[in-house]
Amino acid sequence: MPSLPKPLRGVIPPMVTPLSKPDTLDERGVEKLVEHILEGGVHGLFVLGTTGEAPGLAHPVRHALVRQVCAQVSGRVPVLVGITDTSMTETFHLATTAAEAGATALVAAPPFYFPNGQPELVEYFEHLAPALPLPLFLYNMPTHTKTFLEVGTVRRLMAQETIAGIKDSSGDMSYFHELLRLRAERPGWAVLAGPETLLAESVLLGGDGGVCGGANLDPQLFVRLFEAADCGNLPTVRELHARVMEMACTLYRIGRHGSSFIKSVKCSLSELGICNDFMSEPMHRFREPERALVRETLARLGLLS
Amino acid sequence: MPSLPKPLRGVIPPMVTPLSKPDTLDERGVEKLVEHILEGGVHGLFVLGTTGEAPGLAHPVRHALVRQVCAQVSGRVPVLVGITDTSMTETFHLATTAAEAGATALVAAPPFYFPNGQPELVEYFEHLAPALPLPLFLYNMPTHTKTFLEVGTVRRLMAQETIAGIKDSSGDMSYFHELLRLRAERPGWAVLAGPETLLAESVLLGGDGGVCGGANLDPQLFVRLFEAADCGNLPTVRELHARVMEMACTLYRIGRHGSSFIKSVKCSLSELGICNDFMSEPMHRFREPERALVRETLARLGLLS
Amino acid sequence: MPSLPKPLRGVIPPMVTPLSKPDTLDERGVEKLVEHILEGGVHGLFVLGTTGEAPGLAHPVRHALVRQVCAQVSGRVPVLVGITDTSMTETFHLATTAAEAGATALVAAPPFYFPNGQPELVEYFEHLAPALPLPLFLYNMPTHTKTFLEVGTVRRLMAQETIAGIKDSSGDMSYFHELLRLRAERPGWAVLAGPETLLAESVLLGGDGGVCGGANLDPQLFVRLFEAADCGNLPTVRELHARVMEMACTLYRIGRHGSSFIKSVKCSLSELGICNDFMSEPMHRFREPERALVRETLARLGLLS
Amino acid sequence: MPSLPKPLRGVIPPMVTPLSKPDTLDERGVEKLVEHILEGGVHGLFVLGTTGEAPGLAHPVRHALVRQVCAQVSGRVPVLVGITDTSMTETFHLATTAAEAGATALVAAPPFYFPNGQPELVEYFEHLAPALPLPLFLYNMPTHTKTFLEVGTVRRLMAQETIAGIKDSSGDMSYFHELLRLRAERPGWAVLAGPETLLAESVLLGGDGGVCGGANLDPQLFVRLFEAADCGNLPTVRELHARVMEMACTLYRIGRHGSSFIKSVKCSLSELGICNDFMSEPMHRFREPERALVRETLARLGLLS
Repeated sequence: MPSLPKPLRGVIPPMVTPLSKPDTLDERGVEKLVEHILEGGVHGLFVLGTTGEAPGLAHPVRHALVRQVCAQVSGRVPVLVGITDTSMTETFHLATTAAEAGATALVAAPPFYFPNGQPELVEYFEHLAPALPLPLFLYNMPTHTKTFLEVGTVRRLMAQETIAGIKDSSGDMSYFHELLRLRAERPGWAVLAGPETLLAESVLLGGDGGVCGGANLDPQLFVRLFEAADCGNLPTVRELHARVMEMACTLYRIGRHGSSFIKSVKCSLSELGICNDFMSEPMHRFREPERALVRETLARLGLLS
Repeated sequence: MPSLPKPLRGVIPPMVTPLSKPDTLDERGVEKLVEHILEGGVHGLFVLGTTGEAPGLAHPVRHALVRQVCAQVSGRVPVLVGITDTSMTETFHLATTAAEAGATALVAAPPFYFPNGQPELVEYFEHLAPALPLPLFLYNMPTHTKTFLEVGTVRRLMAQETIAGIKDSSGDMSYFHELLRLRAERPGWAVLAGPETLLAESVLLGGDGGVCGGANLDPQLFVRLFEAADCGNLPTVRELHARVMEMACTLYRIGRHGSSFIKSVKCSLSELGICNDFMSEPMHRFREPERALVRETLARLGLLS
Repeated sequence: MPSLPKPLRGVIPPMVTPLSKPDTLDERGVEKLVEHILEGGVHGLFVLGTTGEAPGLAHPVRHALVRQVCAQVSGRVPVLVGITDTSMTETFHLATTAAEAGATALVAAPPFYFPNGQPELVEYFEHLAPALPLPLFLYNMPTHTKTFLEVGTVRRLMAQETIAGIKDSSGDMSYFHELLRLRAERPGWAVLAGPETLLAESVLLGGDGGVCGGANLDPQLFVRLFEAADCGNLPTVRELHARVMEMACTLYRIGRHGSSFIKSVKCSLSELGICNDFMSEPMHRFREPERALVRETLARLGLLS
Repeated sequence: MPSLPKPLRGVIPPMVTPLSKPDTLDERGVEKLVEHILEGGVHGLFVLGTTGEAPGLAHPVRHALVRQVCAQVSGRVPVLVGITDTSMTETFHLATTAAEAGATALVAAPPFYFPNGQPELVEYFEHLAPALPLPLFLYNMPTHTKTFLEVGTVRRLMAQETIAGIKDSSGDMSYFHELLRLRAERPGWAVLAGPETLLAESVLLGGDGGVCGGANLDPQLFVRLFEAADCGNLPTVRELHARVMEMACTLYRIGRHGSSFIKSVKCSLSELGICNDFMSEPMHRFREPERALVRETLARLGLLS
């Protein structure tokens, strides 16, 4: 198990979960996908996030995925495991499995059925973090959890030794810049951006990296963008950022629902021969008209060899 | 197993889940609470709803609760079981347990992590309902699921033979009245109100009854209110509705978070000696200052004997 | 000028503003509409509300409307004048014109561009009310003002002698019932419901009446519904409420934008030969396909003689 | 009157409106403030925006302000005038005054009382723009107008010759990057960022500049930041961006309501001896405890000489 860099920096793709039919792991697909992503030079791997459809998977499937990925990565990069759940008991079960499988760290968003106040969120993470077997990253994901981890809440939680950073998927860059300021109080704390369209600016202005869903598909693009931004090579940043925007404005716009992003990425991976594109229910994979559009778009983007 | 009345009418309390510590059933409490509620003359019992903290309970606890309650009720009234989950597989597991235990019907809100479009909701329930072993009630709960079951969606789902009605917890009475109009297309379909403060008017204007959380505490009050409204006895309706409002504006206002309602009810039941008041994490039961207020308020309401 | 009843009770239609072209009063239309409404037996008339498109009218048009309507009503019923504006100075100008023209009372929602906190709302109305030449009704209209007048805020404002009641257009009946409870602290205070689909239940359970937009079209329907509810005649209430719901689910659903309600009412009045149907910009009156639907629907509802 | 650069680039401060008492211009303050801002080297001046409290000012005050500022600037930089109003007639009046006074361009957000659909917004601006005497900038300000100018809407409006660009105050940088991509279809179109905390990244990645409220106070800081970002001088960008964040996280956090930003800026300007700090009602200027904090913070920021 590689120890956790302090801070964790770079591109840590939130892996999609290959399924061979609803709620059954596509084990061969998982294997190929992990290798595909690692070949891109990424700095870590995050399983059971939103892009991984974690809440849509039955619990045994989640545990099996964690075991398979940790075994396969085998220390080559840090593995982060999402443990977000509405039930704290299930959250602890996932954490135990992750630790036993050799994962590096955990990631938890707030429980997401009951609306929570900020003091309740503080209590929740103050209770959770010390009881976990691995370091924890906070996960701010207000569109899906209905709760915003406010700056004051994050600041209080920085006092917890075992909380190692935050992944912010709010898309609110003013908030993100405030999180960056907080690091002065705790060097080694990581602040990672969720939306891949914000990777360029977040790293240019001091962020630690990104959890970029598109890196399932084209990991190298995001790794190169991170590196260019990290060393201040603006012309390259602009060129690669334009490419990220082009993917976002074409490929991810196929389909009409909120989950189109995951469907597009899975459909693309299936077109590339990497894994199946089944979705956890009630979501459905793209059918033919969308699938043809994906193929066409991948070709235009130069992603189909 | 009693067959499901068509339509299901009356007061069907959403039972709180007595816990002896976080995520451990208070079995003796469950037993006493079921009897307490049934003695009030209710027309059904609903377990694993929002008031029952279902999403906060580990899965084995949910299954155990369903078995215990069905065994104990033993056909005296219909038992409805909530099967809402982010994972459709877990939803089916709960449905199987409910059917085997002798439950009467199931209740499902939309999956609640990923935001869903209306066409996706239609597909979800069209897929779910025919595959279930028992009749299904829809559950509109937008504050917790982030999704509103729009009138057009409900109308389309009325075509499903095994969907028997809807529980609407939106609090939007204009929407509720539209749902009532839909019944012309499918006699025997039930439209039940969620918020207990709206029971009076919903039944006065043709609704089928309510899923009233306060009926855990004072089941008779709601049964009498339902009956008065159902037979058009306005003076009694006004008097009992005033009492419901008084509970809502005093007892349920103790505490400061969104979950205060459940905490107040559980704390009250503990004061009445019926069951423990532990909450599923990350929620916490009331501590002393709130507890004292609950005691005082119960006394003022004449609920402490 | 009739003095203000304490409390103000009954049906007080929010008059649409007849325009002969954008931002020009249809004076003959105003005259005929006022008589049409008053013949229905209403208990008051409210100009420059949301249904009256007040914020969309140039200021001179608003002032002219107030003068014409007050002169024409000439004390037959109380006239209420909306003075909501983003500029407090313009609010005071409207109040002065209203008083000089012989209006009975004023109605003000919170200023609606800048988001306001509850303490700011308290201060605003505490400053406004005593400086006005006429009694004031609060106006809770969160969909349009982005601000909710919370129960605690309303309770504090009841201490203002010159505030005579509240019109609640939130559609939240639990909140409405709480407002009714507040009246114990100040007898003579009026609580009026905004949405006409909620008139029946609000009056059945103690409300003082409604500000029903549909009463522009069919004032008698709402007056009869109010009277039936007020004297507890449930069978008549149910019959007339069903008719209100039928209008709401057919006539007001024509068109596709948030402003369809006003457009439908104006188009209907134009079909009835009462006034023009121009809208304040940027809204547009219905064109032919919608207009034909309105005609057809009016015929089906028996509203075209 | 200077002609409008194509595209308009740089720092265009949204001027606060100095008042000597509520709704009375502080004319001497306006004069000093204009000179203070222009000395900072700004690329334009924007009056009657949100920071200028435009909706809270009586109409004669708005017109007087436009005349005074245009006369004083006298062609030294382009002057942009906000014409947003709920009444289209008042919008046209402001546009006429602006043109007669010699302003360079106009800025309009959607009308903000009635919720508008995207097709209605397209129609509104398609009607408005050609009828105006000056070029128009769109203004996306969803927190205050309740309406989001979606990418598809903006794309359609780019076909209007007289629309010269957009000011985006949404704070949503993914959306902002999409707007930048649209410029390929219409060279010379300007995309300006609203929130000053996002000026650095927006310009680094191709944006045309910012409408920075803090530039009322320290215009040079924002001009230098724009220039550093525009020529890709990353170390300077980071240093100046840190300073912008420091102002945002200290000075603008004083006070507790949504309008604290404007109050802080006005209070600061008053401490600097530049103008009065009265606010348009119902907002109130800071009283002593906040005022002392402002003084202290200005000193710590080195802004008090």
